[in-house]
Parts: sequence; structure tokens; C-alpha cells
Amino acid sequence: MGRIIVIGIGPGEQAHMTQRAKECLQEADSIVGYSGYVSLLGEEYTQKEILSTGMKREVLRCRLCFEKALEGKVVALICSGDAGVYGMASLVYELSSEYGKVDIEIVPGVTAAASGAAVLGAPINHDFCTISLSDLLTPWELIAKRLQTAAMGDFVITLYNPSSMKRADYLQKACDLLLEILPEDRACGYVKNIGREGTATWTGTLAELRAEQVDMFTTCFIGNSQSFLLDGKLITPRGYRT
Amino acid sequence: MGRIIVIGIGPGEQAHMTQRAKECLQEADSIVGYSGYVSLLGEEYTQKEILSTGMKREVLRCRLCFEKALEGKVVALICSGDAGVYGMASLVYELSSEYGKVDIEIVPGVTAAASGAAVLGAPINHDFCTISLSDLLTPWELIAKRLQTAAMGDFVITLYNPSSMKRADYLQKACDLLLEILPEDRACGYVKNIGREGTATWTGTLAELRAEQVDMFTTCFIGNSQSFLLDGKLITPRGYRT
Repeated sequence: MGRIIVIGIGPGEQAHMTQRAKECLQEADSIVGYSGYVSLLGEEYTQKEILSTGMKREVLRCRLCFEKALEGKVVALICSGDAGVYGMASLVYELSSEYGKVDIEIVPGVTAAASGAAVLGAPINHDFCTISLSDLLTPWELIAKRLQTAAMGDFVITLYNPSSMKRADYLQKACDLLLEILPEDRACGYVKNIGREGTATWTGTLAELRAEQVDMFTTCFIGNSQSFLLDGKLITPRGYRT
Repeated sequence: MGRIIVIGIGPGEQAHMTQRAKECLQEADSIVGYSGYVSLLGEEYTQKEILSTGMKREVLRCRLCFEKALEGKVVALICSGDAGVYGMASLVYELSSEYGKVDIEIVPGVTAAASGAAVLGAPINHDFCTISLSDLLTPWELIAKRLQTAAMGDFVITLYNPSSMKRADYLQKACDLLLEILPEDRACGYVKNIGREGTATWTGTLAELRAEQVDMFTTCFIGNSQSFLLDGKLITPRGYRT
């Protein structure tokens, strides 16, 4: 019986990949993924069958996995970060009923909220939420509602996909909604290219974040009411000291 | 100069530890952590200086790290899951100003939301939040507000520390609050002992979750309005199919 292993490879550097992810890549006959992520794997797997697809070809990419698995192959479907946080895990399960019996394993990885946090300091050290600002698959009204309720609940907020060419002003729109509830001096930060070449960090206030230009390889963090900046690090205390 | 490396070791099994975490443990002179987590590391590090403290000795544990680091040692402070999600990262930064110059590195790991999700199916494949039900450090009123606002925002909700001996009815209290907003048949699940001996999963409705007995080694998942159960797996679609 064929197998599909959906693998979260972490932020980029091999160092932040789990040992299970590495084992599965080594075991796989075929590696399937968005070409940008396949290139992060390095030279180690060049003897494997590598099947890349461009962005926005997610359904095609998953069907390819099932077709290969039904030939009896072990297929590794790679996702950046975690396999199940805005990753391919759910789509693989959704499509599984259309195909014959295929074994599915999800291998978790370090998602950008955690890998970005480690670079910025300790911003998500208390209750937090993740919100993707991409409205390709989610209506903006729902994204707006989530921003507002997260601010009302005093969650630390991490923003995935904060911007793109077509959505150049989305971070600004999100900050405007948050500023209706949160103060201008709320501690914030972001990380670009986590675990990849050109990693860059920024910290400042929510009002300043509104004016920043970020790209789709950026993860933004908006602190909760207890968060603060300490020597350029964004810290959210858990409360052990009080 | 001494160094403190705050390491997220993942859910338990060495397989889900990152390569960077392993490297840092090998490099460390001293390993500091809650004794329950130190034992998860296995036999590999027995030649190191191992300093364990019991639970609820977090400040003491961090001070121990600074004292060792100021002796010039490389100190690994280990946390289960991720180092910065309800972990020790923020406390280390908070205490750092009391000590001389010590290098601090945070090594991210796979947090229970992601490792539990991988076992349950794909429950956090869209915007989600994490809420700890422990009121040792957080007033219950704030926990309650976060449960309510997360439900209003249609987030997938993951619950950390859902129960303990002293808080035997907290999951039930949390479900009661959620049931004021969410329907009884909302798809839910939980995982006990993720990545450790005795891993067990459960899926069902929110009304059924309310009646379940869970312990502090359990992570619970409450789906969003699009989540569903498929052959015993809890799935939250990202929306690629629509």
C-alpha cells in the first residue's frame, strides 16, 4: 500500500527540521512540493523523484501525491513551517475519500509563529492566535472579525501572509482595525525570511507597524496588554515573576 | 562569556526534536529543566551536569541557568514543546537584566497544538488560537474572556493545561462558556500524552467533550464552523477545494 507523508520542514534551515521529517524525506521515493520549498531541502535528495508545482496549485499537488501513492510509492509532500498550520494536511485528508486506501502520516514541524518568536524574543509566551491576512480563500469580513475579536480578547496576534503584490495595503488595513481597539503604543514586531538568507527583524509600536512595508515572507506579531520591548526584543511575560 | 540556550524539545519522542535542539544539547555543559522533561531526553546526555527542579520552581530554574552561565558554562534550559509557547523564554529575558552579560538563544520546537494536530488529523489548518486553562498565573476572568472572544471570532481553539487535580472541572467550565456561543455538535477532539507512551486520541462533539475526563497531559481542540470529522479524524479545511 502506498503512503503519503505530509511533512512540515520548518522555517527553512535544515537545522530547524525535526529528525522525523528528515527520516521521512530519506525514506520517500518521491518528493512533492511548491518549487520554492523543494529548493530549501538542498542537495541531499537529488537522487529522488522531485515533483514541484507552482504556487496556487495545491489541489493538483495533492492529487499528484495520491496518484504516486497508488503506484505503491512512498510520497513526501512538503510544506514550509508546520504541515497542518495553513499547510497541506487538511486538503490531503479531504481528497483521500476520492482515492483508494492510502496510508497518511502528518509530520509536524516548527511553524512561523514559533520560529519567528524565537528570533524576536518571546512574543507568544502567553495565549496567542494566528490569523492569515490572505483573502484568496477567506472573505476579508471574516479576517476582519478575527482581528477584532482577537484584540478584544487580549490575545497576542501573529499575522501570516501579511502582504503580497496584490494585497500591498493589507497590513495597514489590519492595523487600522486593530487600532480601533488597541493603543497606538502596543508593542509589536516582525521577522522577514525566518531561518533563510536575509533574516531581518523589526520591533516598534502598533502605530509604527502600520507604516511598515512587509512582504509575504514576513510574520508579524502584535503583543498583548502585558507585552513590552526589552533591548530590542519583544517579550510577553507568562506571569511567573508576579 | 556564558550562554543560555532555551530549547523546545518537542512533544516527547526524540524524533520530533529539531536537529538544532539536539546539537545544542550535545554542546551544553549543563542541562537544566523540570525533572519530568529531563527524563524524556533518554540516556544520551548522562555525562552532562543535569540540574532538575520540580514543577512551579520556574524562577529558581532560570536563576540557576544564569548562575551557571556566569561561570562561563553553556547551559541548556529545556522546555517541552516549544521554548516560547508557555515556555521559559520570556522569563529568561525578564531576569536577564538582573545579571551580567549572558548570551541568550531560543531554539524553537514543535508545540502541542501542532504535534497534537498531526495525530488528530488537521484541526488547526486555518486561523487558530491557544488558551491555557491554568489559572495559577492568569485570572479566570481573562481566560473566560479569551474563550468567549475566540468563539465569537470562529477561531479553532486549542486548550493547553485543560485540567489538573485541583482544577478537575475546568474543561467542563470552559465548555459551558463555549456552549453559550457555539453549537453542541461542534466537532472537537483531544490527544493525551502526545509523542509519549500511552498516546490516546478522542474525537466527538463539544457537548460530548464537556463530559470527558482529561488530565494535564492532554491538549484539546475545538473546531471552527467549517471543521468536521472524517473517519475519526478532525479536519479544518483551508478552503482550497471551494
